[in-house]
Amino acid sequence: MGVGDVSKRILLGRKLRSAQLGETLLPKRIALPVFASDALSSVAYAPDEIFIMLAIAGASQYVWSWKIGIAVALVMAAVIASYRQTVHAYPSGGGDYEVATVNLGRTAGMTVASALLVDYVLTVAVSISSGANYASAAIPAFQDHEATIAVVMVVLLTAMNLRGIRESGTFFAVPTYLFMFAILGMCAYGFLEMVLGTLPLAESAGLDITPKEGWEDPLTTFGLLILLARAFSSGCAALTGVEAISNGVPAFKRPKSKNAASTLLLLGLIAITMMISVITLAKQMGLKYVDPHELSRLTLNGEPVPKDYDQHAVIAQIARAIFHDFSPGFYFVVTVTGVILVLAANTAFNGFPVLGSILAKDGLAPRALGARGDRLAYSNGIVFLALMAIVLIVAFDAETTKLIQLYIVGVFVSFNLSQLGMIRHWTRALTTERDPAERRKIYRSRTINAVGLSFTAVVLVVVLLTKFLAGAWITILAMAFFFAVMKGIKKHYDNVERELAADETDKALPTRVHAIVLVSKLHKPTLRALAFAKATRPNSLEGVYVSVDEKETARLLEEWDERNTGIPLKVLHSPYREVVKPIIEYASAIRRANPRGVVAVYIPEYVVGRWWEQLLHNQTALRLKGRLLFTPGVMVTSVPYQLHSSQIAREREEREETRVRPGDLRRGRVTPPGERDDRQVPRG
Amino acid sequence: MGVGDVSKRILLGRKLRSAQLGETLLPKRIALPVFASDALSSVAYAPDEIFIMLAIAGASQYVWSWKIGIAVALVMAAVIASYRQTVHAYPSGGGDYEVATVNLGRTAGMTVASALLVDYVLTVAVSISSGANYASAAIPAFQDHEATIAVVMVVLLTAMNLRGIRESGTFFAVPTYLFMFAILGMCAYGFLEMVLGTLPLAESAGLDITPKEGWEDPLTTFGLLILLARAFSSGCAALTGVEAISNGVPAFKRPKSKNAASTLLLLGLIAITMMISVITLAKQMGLKYVDPHELSRLTLNGEPVPKDYDQHAVIAQIARAIFHDFSPGFYFVVTVTGVILVLAANTAFNGFPVLGSILAKDGLAPRALGARGDRLAYSNGIVFLALMAIVLIVAFDAETTKLIQLYIVGVFVSFNLSQLGMIRHWTRALTTERDPAERRKIYRSRTINAVGLSFTAVVLVVVLLTKFLAGAWITILAMAFFFAVMKGIKKHYDNVERELAADETDKALPTRVHAIVLVSKLHKPTLRALAFAKATRPNSLEGVYVSVDEKETARLLEEWDERNTGIPLKVLHSPYREVVKPIIEYASAIRRANPRGVVAVYIPEYVVGRWWEQLLHNQTALRLKGRLLFTPGVMVTSVPYQLHSSQIAREREEREETRVRPGDLRRGRVTPPGERDDRQVPRG
Repeated sequence: MGVGDVSKRILLGRKLRSAQLGETLLPKRIALPVFASDALSSVAYAPDEIFIMLAIAGASQYVWSWKIGIAVALVMAAVIASYRQTVHAYPSGGGDYEVATVNLGRTAGMTVASALLVDYVLTVAVSISSGANYASAAIPAFQDHEATIAVVMVVLLTAMNLRGIRESGTFFAVPTYLFMFAILGMCAYGFLEMVLGTLPLAESAGLDITPKEGWEDPLTTFGLLILLARAFSSGCAALTGVEAISNGVPAFKRPKSKNAASTLLLLGLIAITMMISVITLAKQMGLKYVDPHELSRLTLNGEPVPKDYDQHAVIAQIARAIFHDFSPGFYFVVTVTGVILVLAANTAFNGFPVLGSILAKDGLAPRALGARGDRLAYSNGIVFLALMAIVLIVAFDAETTKLIQLYIVGVFVSFNLSQLGMIRHWTRALTTERDPAERRKIYRSRTINAVGLSFTAVVLVVVLLTKFLAGAWITILAMAFFFAVMKGIKKHYDNVERELAADETDKALPTRVHAIVLVSKLHKPTLRALAFAKATRPNSLEGVYVSVDEKETARLLEEWDERNTGIPLKVLHSPYREVVKPIIEYASAIRRANPRGVVAVYIPEYVVGRWWEQLLHNQTALRLKGRLLFTPGVMVTSVPYQLHSSQIAREREEREETRVRPGDLRRGRVTPPGERDDRQVPRG
Repeated sequence: MGVGDVSKRILLGRKLRSAQLGETLLPKRIALPVFASDALSSVAYAPDEIFIMLAIAGASQYVWSWKIGIAVALVMAAVIASYRQTVHAYPSGGGDYEVATVNLGRTAGMTVASALLVDYVLTVAVSISSGANYASAAIPAFQDHEATIAVVMVVLLTAMNLRGIRESGTFFAVPTYLFMFAILGMCAYGFLEMVLGTLPLAESAGLDITPKEGWEDPLTTFGLLILLARAFSSGCAALTGVEAISNGVPAFKRPKSKNAASTLLLLGLIAITMMISVITLAKQMGLKYVDPHELSRLTLNGEPVPKDYDQHAVIAQIARAIFHDFSPGFYFVVTVTGVILVLAANTAFNGFPVLGSILAKDGLAPRALGARGDRLAYSNGIVFLALMAIVLIVAFDAETTKLIQLYIVGVFVSFNLSQLGMIRHWTRALTTERDPAERRKIYRSRTINAVGLSFTAVVLVVVLLTKFLAGAWITILAMAFFFAVMKGIKKHYDNVERELAADETDKALPTRVHAIVLVSKLHKPTLRALAFAKATRPNSLEGVYVSVDEKETARLLEEWDERNTGIPLKVLHSPYREVVKPIIEYASAIRRANPRGVVAVYIPEYVVGRWWEQLLHNQTALRLKGRLLFTPGVMVTSVPYQLHSSQIAREREEREETRVRPGDLRRGRVTPPGERDDRQVPRG
């Protein structure tokens, strides 16, 4: 097979690949579950947060619960409408980051990126903490060990993602549709019972709530405002994750934007329905819910509940009451809720590397993150995400209520910048668009985004006011940190680019090549290095041996003479057994003697397969290469000699390359690359 | 300066170095403290162990204490006499390992090496635990936190050794001589008071000791024998460290062997004097000492001592009594004892890498340990030693008494094998030696070693019998582990050597060189790589670019044409943003098309200085190089381009190289290599 064939094949391969790319695109019915788990799962904790906040002033304030639910739903509707504009205007999948960068500049883009990075960490921490809560509702033995369970779950999820999970549409579709079915079914049945007047009471219905210290007196208007603001801003946790689809447009079937927009609409409708239903039912069932830290404020006949009272999550309480005579129903609801929360956490493990690769492309993150298949970079990102989430879980003892305080700021920072960017986008579009029909459409889109912005801006202000001291400051600090790191990386890459820019002086060719081959013994690798070096026909060629022992040196010299290679051997003496330094000095000296020449250093290397074999070999070669790179006018050539065991490592590497990377699915890659390649380069 | 000059200079440099080597050799007055700390420091815990063991059957058994001291002294005298033979016969500093390997074969040598490795760990654990004990005697606040203090001390010592301490003769001489002065002075004063009848009583003199359960009845002869055997074998802890000089002969001033032998004799005399004096004084002062775990066996007027009774080490009790009206004296004795114990631990940090390099030379340890200046290998060794010592300290709660149970087995295994080796050595010498005077000398030496062996063999049996269940089994397991690892490494190296052995088929020269230069951008590094590659005049040369983005590709192709390099550019398309795989495939394809040719892959690399800059660059190049090494018929050339910041790393490397390595002093290296180099290669 000639070289030309190969390149043609690679070109052909490209066409095949493009064609295949289509096969892996997601129809709406699969795209919905793939992108919805994060947004839908928040129904597992957002209603709880609303009830907790209202409970501050006692159970009487629960009359506000469904109104707050409506307010949150309105904001969600506005946000969904806005993102439907985004998926049309930016179908490339850059999402908020792209919108902000293109329309508002690099600083806004970096702010959004920082917010997203922080959000990924919090998505893991919040979802898994909430999941641990549900696990302990179903399995009493888990009670009071929520933090441990959450950490174990994060570790498992990390291991799975490091290993590479083969995500498929089904992987997401089954649990997500089961979750929708479970929650919507349960609520529908509840409403039926409500209409029939047979709606059972929640387990906590008989309890009463003592207002928090300072909130005992009847509320002033201002007090009520504060209370409602806090409840509302916590309820806005329901909005997290709705932006996911805007990052996944390229994975949709054509027409991509239209399909993405309809999926988004469907997602919004389902999410709003679920949330309002859960809140209404809970209120009707007399549920009482307080901060899990202040269980003593729950009273039964005037006495605080016993210390070991176990307050179950809102959905768990509803399920327990509705399925009071059918416990499998309860376990089903709780289990699918737990699973959907874990899936939601998994979206962060998918989104984090995707964002990393986008940032890498823009020079805001280490470039290695940009190349697919750099396992090390991917792994580092995943481990970093997991560690940060674990720190948060441990620091906040897996308490969703506390973690929520940190969560929403980041989400709304990116919502706001993205809406602002979209307004700017439409305004710009108006300057070039002349067609009146199109202009009307643009005006309409701009209005939608403006309404969206006004909603999200209000929420951001409310969230900042109510949550800053409760934890949002941590998020803002973390965002500032990520922002500074990205700025530093960008600056570094820019500096390097300037330093490396080619100019007209870079045309000079080295006048001569002085090749030296490092000799430690006269074995196959050395002979191969000598042969390879000789094949390059350098202007001068010699073997170089560092002598640390006179007897060994004499033996080697004898062997060298016997071999009669025709290549001279230079012996460098090193009584202190240093190997690297004499070689560096010798190479530098040759270069100094010939400033316009180049020194080619050939290093024979054995290639072994097992990790411990690597430790036993080539350490000196590695160090030497590292040092030689700092020596000007030197190029370093590794001449590998593959030992039998190297086959092991080669196979490992090949397995590694065909492995699925987190986030492949939502970038429209379903078939693992290994299978693609089988088709692309036919065997034989 | 021509190349010839350089090599002459390096040869000249060698002579200078040899001359300088003499300057760094140690006179006896410095060699004694450098090598003595380990052996002398055992007087800080060996007497305590004898008293603890005798106390099992009650304080009445203390009448045996000085007799056991004498027995230990006799064994020590025999061992010292034996090692005086060793330093004459093996002046190269290989010590027990060399003696065993040369005379008894590889298995015996590996056994000795395993024993020594375990011993180094135990030297650290025992010395530091004992030191922590003294610290808590001087500073009451430290009481009951001995393990923590010991761990902190190990960590500090590790940090110092990783950093590289500039050891000098003074560094050892001052504390060691102060220690000798303190102990011998205190004892002399005590004996003076004894003669004058004014010897004060120890703080524990008024106490009585309840025998341990099962030992209350009057002793049978067999019981007494067991008791004495146990006390004796614990007392043999005093012998640890006497072998140090036999590893350090090359560091002595000439005549090396003679000086080493006299230093050894002096060391033995001082150690024996100290031990016997401390034991006798303690007995005369009525000291009572039990296992720190069984303090309740100490009684005052029939009642157990209060739970917070603080039992001070033997030397501390003697010092407190003798200096009862001069507390600075007490603090001086305790402080220098603590310091000498830390120095003793430090000898392990010195000896461990030295042994590692000897083993590496024989293919029993990773070869990287053999090269001086391989900081990573050194650091790994030091960290490994420290971790193992910390595990032991924590596991045994820094209790010297328990750690001693593990300690002595290893020492006596190597003593025995070494003596046996020496007997074999002399027997062999007799087969060639004809001169009657010399033969008489050899007979004398062999007798000394035979006596030594009979003593140490008895001790080894006693130690195994009395200590196996008490902890010696751990040591034996650890030895077996090290033995297996060394055997595995040796086997691996042997296999590789066989696989690599050159034969007559290794003469074929590649027929053609196909050079490809990897192009990511057209900047200085790429242009340099192209120029270097062109300078090697390969049979064919092309640039190779992996296209992941069509716009960027078009821009690059345009630039390439503008530059007009005359080198063709091959574009490999990679829609999945994989970079490594297309290149590997392309290189393999070229090679397949030309099985007798060689593919030279040139990789432009930027060289940066700061660690985080390294993370931001060359990750793909690194991965690519790793993968290409597994591809047959390929050689990989790094063409470095040094950015300004690379200067930082270069300077760091140079600082690193001039750094002192642990154990330099005892190998006769005092002047740091940096200073040597200044003199060796005159500037300008």
